[in-house]
Amino acid sequence: MVVRIGVIGAGMIGQDHIRRISEVLSGCEVVAVTDVDPAKAREVADARPGITVHATGDEVVADPAVDAVVVTSWGPTHRQYVLASIAAGKQVFCEKPLAESGQDCIDILESEAATGRRSVQVGYMRRYDSAYRALKAVVDAGEIGAPLMVHCVHRNPSVPGHYRKEMMITDTAVHEIDAMRWLLGEEIVSTQVLVPRKNANGVELQDPLILLLTMESGAIVDVEISVNIRYGYDIRGEVVGENGTVSLGEASPVTVRREGRFSGHIPVGWRERFIRAYDTEIQEWVDGVAAGRPPAGPSSWDGYVAAVVSEAGLEALRSGARVDVKLVDKPALYT
Amino acid sequence: MVVRIGVIGAGMIGQDHIRRISEVLSGCEVVAVTDVDPAKAREVADARPGITVHATGDEVVADPAVDAVVVTSWGPTHRQYVLASIAAGKQVFCEKPLAESGQDCIDILESEAATGRRSVQVGYMRRYDSAYRALKAVVDAGEIGAPLMVHCVHRNPSVPGHYRKEMMITDTAVHEIDAMRWLLGEEIVSTQVLVPRKNANGVELQDPLILLLTMESGAIVDVEISVNIRYGYDIRGEVVGENGTVSLGEASPVTVRREGRFSGHIPVGWRERFIRAYDTEIQEWVDGVAAGRPPAGPSSWDGYVAAVVSEAGLEALRSGARVDVKLVDKPALYT
Amino acid sequence: MVVRIGVIGAGMIGQDHIRRISEVLSGCEVVAVTDVDPAKAREVADARPGITVHATGDEVVADPAVDAVVVTSWGPTHRQYVLASIAAGKQVFCEKPLAESGQDCIDILESEAATGRRSVQVGYMRRYDSAYRALKAVVDAGEIGAPLMVHCVHRNPSVPGHYRKEMMITDTAVHEIDAMRWLLGEEIVSTQVLVPRKNANGVELQDPLILLLTMESGAIVDVEISVNIRYGYDIRGEVVGENGTVSLGEASPVTVRREGRFSGHIPVGWRERFIRAYDTEIQEWVDGVAAGRPPAGPSSWDGYVAAVVSEAGLEALRSGARVDVKLVDKPALYT
Amino acid sequence: MVVRIGVIGAGMIGQDHIRRISEVLSGCEVVAVTDVDPAKAREVADARPGITVHATGDEVVADPAVDAVVVTSWGPTHRQYVLASIAAGKQVFCEKPLAESGQDCIDILESEAATGRRSVQVGYMRRYDSAYRALKAVVDAGEIGAPLMVHCVHRNPSVPGHYRKEMMITDTAVHEIDAMRWLLGEEIVSTQVLVPRKNANGVELQDPLILLLTMESGAIVDVEISVNIRYGYDIRGEVVGENGTVSLGEASPVTVRREGRFSGHIPVGWRERFIRAYDTEIQEWVDGVAAGRPPAGPSSWDGYVAAVVSEAGLEALRSGARVDVKLVDKPALYT
Repeated sequence: MVVRIGVIGAGMIGQDHIRRISEVLSGCEVVAVTDVDPAKAREVADARPGITVHATGDEVVADPAVDAVVVTSWGPTHRQYVLASIAAGKQVFCEKPLAESGQDCIDILESEAATGRRSVQVGYMRRYDSAYRALKAVVDAGEIGAPLMVHCVHRNPSVPGHYRKEMMITDTAVHEIDAMRWLLGEEIVSTQVLVPRKNANGVELQDPLILLLTMESGAIVDVEISVNIRYGYDIRGEVVGENGTVSLGEASPVTVRREGRFSGHIPVGWRERFIRAYDTEIQEWVDGVAAGRPPAGPSSWDGYVAAVVSEAGLEALRSGARVDVKLVDKPALYT
Repeated sequence: MVVRIGVIGAGMIGQDHIRRISEVLSGCEVVAVTDVDPAKAREVADARPGITVHATGDEVVADPAVDAVVVTSWGPTHRQYVLASIAAGKQVFCEKPLAESGQDCIDILESEAATGRRSVQVGYMRRYDSAYRALKAVVDAGEIGAPLMVHCVHRNPSVPGHYRKEMMITDTAVHEIDAMRWLLGEEIVSTQVLVPRKNANGVELQDPLILLLTMESGAIVDVEISVNIRYGYDIRGEVVGENGTVSLGEASPVTVRREGRFSGHIPVGWRERFIRAYDTEIQEWVDGVAAGRPPAGPSSWDGYVAAVVSEAGLEALRSGARVDVKLVDKPALYT
Repeated sequence: MVVRIGVIGAGMIGQDHIRRISEVLSGCEVVAVTDVDPAKAREVADARPGITVHATGDEVVADPAVDAVVVTSWGPTHRQYVLASIAAGKQVFCEKPLAESGQDCIDILESEAATGRRSVQVGYMRRYDSAYRALKAVVDAGEIGAPLMVHCVHRNPSVPGHYRKEMMITDTAVHEIDAMRWLLGEEIVSTQVLVPRKNANGVELQDPLILLLTMESGAIVDVEISVNIRYGYDIRGEVVGENGTVSLGEASPVTVRREGRFSGHIPVGWRERFIRAYDTEIQEWVDGVAAGRPPAGPSSWDGYVAAVVSEAGLEALRSGARVDVKLVDKPALYT
Repeated sequence: MVVRIGVIGAGMIGQDHIRRISEVLSGCEVVAVTDVDPAKAREVADARPGITVHATGDEVVADPAVDAVVVTSWGPTHRQYVLASIAAGKQVFCEKPLAESGQDCIDILESEAATGRRSVQVGYMRRYDSAYRALKAVVDAGEIGAPLMVHCVHRNPSVPGHYRKEMMITDTAVHEIDAMRWLLGEEIVSTQVLVPRKNANGVELQDPLILLLTMESGAIVDVEISVNIRYGYDIRGEVVGENGTVSLGEASPVTVRREGRFSGHIPVGWRERFIRAYDTEIQEWVDGVAAGRPPAGPSSWDGYVAAVVSEAGLEALRSGARVDVKLVDKPALYT
């Protein structure tokens, strides 16, 4: 079975998923597209055979030729299209964030729970990165003992002009927020934010930040968030256990010995670093849809928690104090 | 366009390509299969929808539903099926070796040249490995100056019982033979083989060997071939230029700190090490077929040269002396 | 000129310095020794020619054959012997801590300042480690831009039975406290302590801890302190600047490829890791004494600040809150 | 006891040893010096107290104030001063080469053997390098099984104008010749030299070369010798055993992340790379002299073998063929 996909939102990430579904992955094709800018949707459809342009996301969801939906539109519209997909009984892959607030996410949780079946996956792709999976495998095998701390680094060479201060937490560190819950298999109970000396490269921002997360077990995660560090896109992490540690490796394919140095390559951006993780993420989702299985990836619950922890992180940034994370009871569907 | 592929030979590598074409790659499907063991072909076809079983490879080639052919049968049959594919005007991907001898390869060269168009690709997958490609990019960019030497290591933890002494050259080192010609962009002019102290793990074999290749430019390549080294499957290489060097990196996804050591993972076998290269190799070939382009990968000429250099290597192993590589004139089709 | 040294305290570190001065370093010899246990002093003196045993540290200081004093006695006695050395006009090398409290250190500061000349050096040996020096050289050269954060790790495989909870700060992290002031060239203005999940290996301790230091510039230092992590003695550090970072390297002399892993050695203890730093520390101090120069290493002021920051760290550990570091005005002698 | 040393030859390496003996090492001092250029000897003596200038090396050896002799004069004079030291019953440390030819070395062997006691040490300092010692420890512990091959790299950024073609073997690769005998604990039975494409940086030389050494056990050592590779002084080595390998590590004290690369430092020259090995070499020699022990380092026999293997290497370079190494019977003194 070829999974026929409708894509809502034809911006950068939407076009990248269309390329991926059309040219890279197995067992899937794009059959419908829409965008807030109809010309862009038309352009995308014209570049490939067999794609219908719709005027709205709701039309994409309703299109009987569409088996499953990918939501890559502007964040504030995610809630609407995810709810529509749930209502239509179609699996939906929604890029992060699931919705704009914890409360909006609860609407989705309740709607999905009412169907008695999981159908929503949220686009936290680190869970599909082979290095993160290897990290988790070492932890889960007990090779380092119980995890006590995780040291994370999330560095961007620069950020676009529209990047606002809050996005340090909600857009950047949110990847670690999801990844740490998945890696350690437990919830975050509180957050704190430290504000180091300001990087002069990032004039409009309070950059860098250090986000501290305390987990249910008491394990503490520290996340350095640097978004103007120029030298590259650098994602690092070390889990410290009782008897040892495991950390993400250096991924340079080759080592050059030249001009007094031996050196390796650091990725220039997130696309280079995580392109394989995106491929794996969507392929596994497609395979599940084809098999009629509910999605195994980040759920509506994970999307909800990411929103609530991000909100707590923002409050911690404003107040300087430790802020507790308060979650609703976890619906049985997600346990 | 979906490229419909017929597979001749349903052994281990054939089944792996069928899985890859069916589950991993984009724009292709398996529509026909055959095997010297009809039951095996039947079993493979039954496991997936839409695959016709044929009694012979020639029937696969002739099947009008087949757009392109993958040859993964026993080596001595390669020549026949490649020639049949050429005759049928269908692109053919032939696993190494192209044929059993340099002379057999010449038959293919002449047959293909007579069509005036390249249609054969041989399965030397290292050219598709991202680390090898990064190695070549550094060399080609001139970052290390003209290449003077290459130090290669090809280590297997063990080899199967049917592995014969000659396969150290023809089956194992042949990957370096092809990769070095591609990496340096020049032919091999002579070979020599050194015989070190014998590894007691490999009772039936003269293991390890050191294969020396002299290139047209005078650059020397040394290849350590170890096939019973137990610890892992380890492919290494360093190109030494006039002003620097570039070498394949350590590819471990994570570093573990435990019991007094920091350590990384070494692949257990060729499948783990090169699985991505196989994916890329076949995807690029399929994309070319779909686009109606002649294959851009290793050609019949490359298959021919690999055979001739391997024969020279075997003679060098027997004689202990340096053996010149004598090639026919290169047909214009391959320049 | 051979510098004749009197050693006060012949315990483990005292004996190690006696060995170093006698067998490793140039231009120095031990001529006098004392210990609270006279038998131990006698044993040390009997093992080498030319060492006089004294009944008290004050006698060592007063001995006219002694050019300079090394204090390696029990911490609470340091103040007394340093003051005696100052009074005697002899240079003194005092192992950490300089004294038991910030207030005790002030007595030394005032006494030394009254002589108008620096004569005290405190044993913070990381400043003499070649890797730390290379770290500082990169920072000082501006290669990474202004330093914004430092991530430190201080891990011990285990600690002796007499190790108390407070020593996590005063005995272990105090090395980072001194090293960070030296590395960044600025004072610490506040401290905070985070308490992660407890390591079951360290039953009596709150282990690990994360010590946070805020520097005058606003740069933040985080220090993981783990003292029962079993796998080795692991000192790590990364300075994060505006445009890049520099970190301590892996120092394994060889890489072993074996049983599926490539791996390197991690030191088993502080002695192995820092033995060269101790050698360099004492040699440079001896060379200064021989040349009649005041000591260039960690001063009484540095010893004082270490005591005050440690006290603030202890208060932060007790309270959970951020604690300011309050220093007296820096005497002109130390600027 | 302070060992009083006479130094014959005050050129670069001689001055370096004088500095080392005077300022770095324990238990030794320079009391006499000579040089073919009397003014240079005078200058060296004037820079430090207590050094007598002699007109000739023989006078240095004869000086009753001299306990032991260091020979750092021009190579052709080594034989004379070593023989004089043996005759005087004084231990002598002779920088490489022991003498100009295998035959000259035999004179020394016979002279020393006649005394019934070893008193000569030759300056092959790699045996004192901590990384080489760690390499040997892994091999000797059997961690990788029996050694079958060693891959060596000896790279210099450039060589001085007086460097002649033969020195690639006799001056550069001779370090590997000695180190491999020591590492593997066996003699070299034959040599061969491969001549790769010429490095345009080294206009007057045949650079690089690959020296092949076959050991008694059949193990093969390959040594890349590059002396104009510009990027740094790079000494590498990997011992390949039956079940694993061990290789010299990267020794960079820090890692820098900057401008898209993570990188480490490569030494600029032999002095930086091996300064510690020289210190250890002379300290251990001095300690032996002080204790009245015969030298434990490279012996006259080792110096003799290095000469003979170098001569075989030169013949192999001229002829292109494999050349057997023919040694005299090993005197009992050296077993």
